[in-house]
Amino acid sequence: MACTNPKKVCIVGSGNWGSAIAKIVGNNAAQLKNLDDRVTMYVYEEIVDGKKLTEIINETHENVKYLPGHKLPPNVVAVPDVVEAAKDADILIFVVPHQFIRTLCSTLLGKIKPNAIALSLIKGFDRAEGGGIDLISHIITRHLQIPCSVLMGANLAGEVADEKFCETTIGCKDILAGPLLRDVIQTSYFRVVVVDDEDTVEVCGALKNIVACGAGFVDGLGLGDNTKAAVIRLGLMEMVKFVDVFYPGGKLSTFFESCGVADLITTCYGGRNRKVSEAFVKTGKSIKELEDEMLNGQKLQGPYTAEEVNYMLKNKGMEDKFPLFTAIHKICTGLLKPSDFIDCIRNHPEHMDTKSYDYQSSQKSYHRSSSKL
Amino acid sequence: MACTNPKKVCIVGSGNWGSAIAKIVGNNAAQLKNLDDRVTMYVYEEIVDGKKLTEIINETHENVKYLPGHKLPPNVVAVPDVVEAAKDADILIFVVPHQFIRTLCSTLLGKIKPNAIALSLIKGFDRAEGGGIDLISHIITRHLQIPCSVLMGANLAGEVADEKFCETTIGCKDILAGPLLRDVIQTSYFRVVVVDDEDTVEVCGALKNIVACGAGFVDGLGLGDNTKAAVIRLGLMEMVKFVDVFYPGGKLSTFFESCGVADLITTCYGGRNRKVSEAFVKTGKSIKELEDEMLNGQKLQGPYTAEEVNYMLKNKGMEDKFPLFTAIHKICTGLLKPSDFIDCIRNHPEHMDTKSYDYQSSQKSYHRSSSKL
Repeated sequence: MACTNPKKVCIVGSGNWGSAIAKIVGNNAAQLKNLDDRVTMYVYEEIVDGKKLTEIINETHENVKYLPGHKLPPNVVAVPDVVEAAKDADILIFVVPHQFIRTLCSTLLGKIKPNAIALSLIKGFDRAEGGGIDLISHIITRHLQIPCSVLMGANLAGEVADEKFCETTIGCKDILAGPLLRDVIQTSYFRVVVVDDEDTVEVCGALKNIVACGAGFVDGLGLGDNTKAAVIRLGLMEMVKFVDVFYPGGKLSTFFESCGVADLITTCYGGRNRKVSEAFVKTGKSIKELEDEMLNGQKLQGPYTAEEVNYMLKNKGMEDKFPLFTAIHKICTGLLKPSDFIDCIRNHPEHMDTKSYDYQSSQKSYHRSSSKL
Repeated sequence: MACTNPKKVCIVGSGNWGSAIAKIVGNNAAQLKNLDDRVTMYVYEEIVDGKKLTEIINETHENVKYLPGHKLPPNVVAVPDVVEAAKDADILIFVVPHQFIRTLCSTLLGKIKPNAIALSLIKGFDRAEGGGIDLISHIITRHLQIPCSVLMGANLAGEVADEKFCETTIGCKDILAGPLLRDVIQTSYFRVVVVDDEDTVEVCGALKNIVACGAGFVDGLGLGDNTKAAVIRLGLMEMVKFVDVFYPGGKLSTFFESCGVADLITTCYGGRNRKVSEAFVKTGKSIKELEDEMLNGQKLQGPYTAEEVNYMLKNKGMEDKFPLFTAIHKICTGLLKPSDFIDCIRNHPEHMDTKSYDYQSSQKSYHRSSSKL
C-alpha cells in the first residue's frame, strides 16, 4: 500500500462513540500525510431544534445531540446519505448499532471502492440463523465483500472525548493495514495495540457481558471481593476455551490485551450488565422488568449473549465444559436461582488435575498428568 | 510416594492466615487416609488473659487472638516449640511474617525429616544482599535443604475462614507433590489449581502490590475506570516481562491463574496499597507518614517492592522497558509527581509496533513486523 494517494476515511455512524471517534480521526487526518484531510461521517438525519443535524454539525462542528460539549475538527463533514459518505472511502469505520448493519451493507454493496477496507467498532453480534453468534465483522465481509478488522477495548465514549488516557485493541490480519488503522485511530491518550487475532478480539467484546452478569450476581449475593475475582477469572477462562472451540487459531496472548482482560475488568466493576444483574438478585424481578425499569426498555446484552452461547454449547454437547456461562444463562431464564450460582462452579473443569500447557504457535493442548495417588 | 504411611503435616505459623489454613488442613487430615490425623501448628507462645495461647487453642480449639469466632478441628495441636512441631512432619506449611523465615529455618535445619517438603504461603519477599528480590521459597530451600512449593491467590483469611468461595494457585514442580498438596489444601469453597511454574506464582504475589499503587494513584487523580483498567493491564504486562527477564522459563498461562490476574484485580480494587496510594495523591503526605497514620506504622509492600524491583531493573539498564514500575517507584520516592504518572506510560513498549507472539513451550519472542509505511 504505497503512500502516493492519501487514504480517504468514512465513519459510518455518528452516535456517542461514532462522534468521539470522528473527533480523533479528523484530527489525525488533518496531520498525517497518508490520510486525506476530508473525513466524511454518515449521519442519520434528524431534526434538532427545527434544524437538520447534519447542518448543525457542519456549521457548528458539534454533534449537539450525541456528543454535546465537544468540538469536532472542521475537516469532518456530516453527510446524510450513506452512499454519498462512503463511495470514495478507502477506509470504512463502522460504528452503528448492530441491528442496522445488514441494511447498511446491502445499501453500500457495489457502491464502494473495491479495495476499501473496513474497521468495525461495533460491540455485540447478530443472532445467526437458527441461533448462535454471527460476528459483525463477518457479516460486513459477507455482505460488502471487503476485509473487516475490529477495534475493541476498555473504552467509554465520554472518557475518550474528554481525552482521558485509555487503551484499545485492533484485530487486523493484514500486516500493512494494521499499522495504517493504528495511525488513523491512535492519539496520545488513546493507545492502540494491533494484534492479528481478529476473531478473538471481537468475541471478547461479546462474551465479557456474560461474565459481567456473573459478577453482578456475586455483588447481589454479597459474596465478597475474592469470590468476585474467582468468578471473573473463571469467566475469562471460559472465554479462552470458547474461542479455542469455536474460533480455533486464537491466541492466549490476545486475552491479555485491552479487548480481553482490561475490558472484562471494567465491565465487571462498572457497566449495566453488572448493575442490572445485581438488581436481579436483590429485587427478584425478571430481566425484562429490569430492562424496562433501568434501561428504558433497551435489551441487556449479557443475558442475550448467554442465550446464544448456550445454543452453541448445547449443539456441541459442551454445557458441562462451560459451567459458568451455562449457570448464568439458566439463572437469567429462571431455570436456576441466583443462590445456586456458586455451587455450579465449585467443580469447574479448571479445578481438575494438574495443568501443564503446551503452546505451539496458536494451539493450546491440555496435558493432564496422572494426579491420583 | 506410596500411600502406605499417612503424611504428617505441620503448619509453621498461627496468625490470621495460618489459623484459617489450619482449619482447612485439620479437616482434610481427618478425612483423607493418606494424611495423618494429627496436624501440628507452631504457635509463637503468648499470654492471653493470663493464659498460654497454646493451651487456649488446645482446650477450646479456637485461636482467640488471631482467628476469633472460628473453631479449629480438634486434631490440630498447637505446639509452642517449632522443632517439636516440625520434627516428624512430611509436609511443612510456612505461613509466618516473612521477616522471621531465616531464623525459623536456621532453627529447623537438621531437625526435620530429610524427605520433608515445604509449602510457602508467605506473600512478599526478602531483600537480597545489596538489593533486589530474594523469593521466600528460595530462602527456605537454601536454608532448609528441602524443596519448597508456593501457594498464592486472591484469598483473604477472614473470607476463607467464613468459607466464602474463592480460588488459589499452588506452584509445584514435582508431579506427585502437586496433587498431594492440593489434597491437603482444597475444600469445596477453597479451589486449588496446581501449576508447575513455581517462581511465576510467587513473583505475582510480590509484583501485584506495585501495580496496586498505580491503581491507587489513578483513583487519587480521579482519572476514570478505563484509565485504571489500562494501568492494571500495563502493570500485568510488566509483571509478565519481569518474569521473562529475571525468572526465565515462566509461562504466560500462569498469569491467568488466581495468583495472577485474579489477585491483581482484587488488590487493585481493594487492599491497603491502593488505599494508601490514593491517599498519597489526595493528601500530599509521604508514604512514611501514611504508613504511620493508616497502617499503625507497618510497612506498605508496594513502594518497598517497587524499590527493589527498580534496583534490579537499573542493574540491567532496563528501566525504560518497565515505565510503569519505574514511574511508581519515582512517585513514591518523590522524584516525580503523581500528575506525571500517565505521561510516563503514554509510550509504553506495549504500544510499539504490531505484535505477534511465538510461544514455543515457555519461551516468548516478540516478532516486530515492519510497520512503517
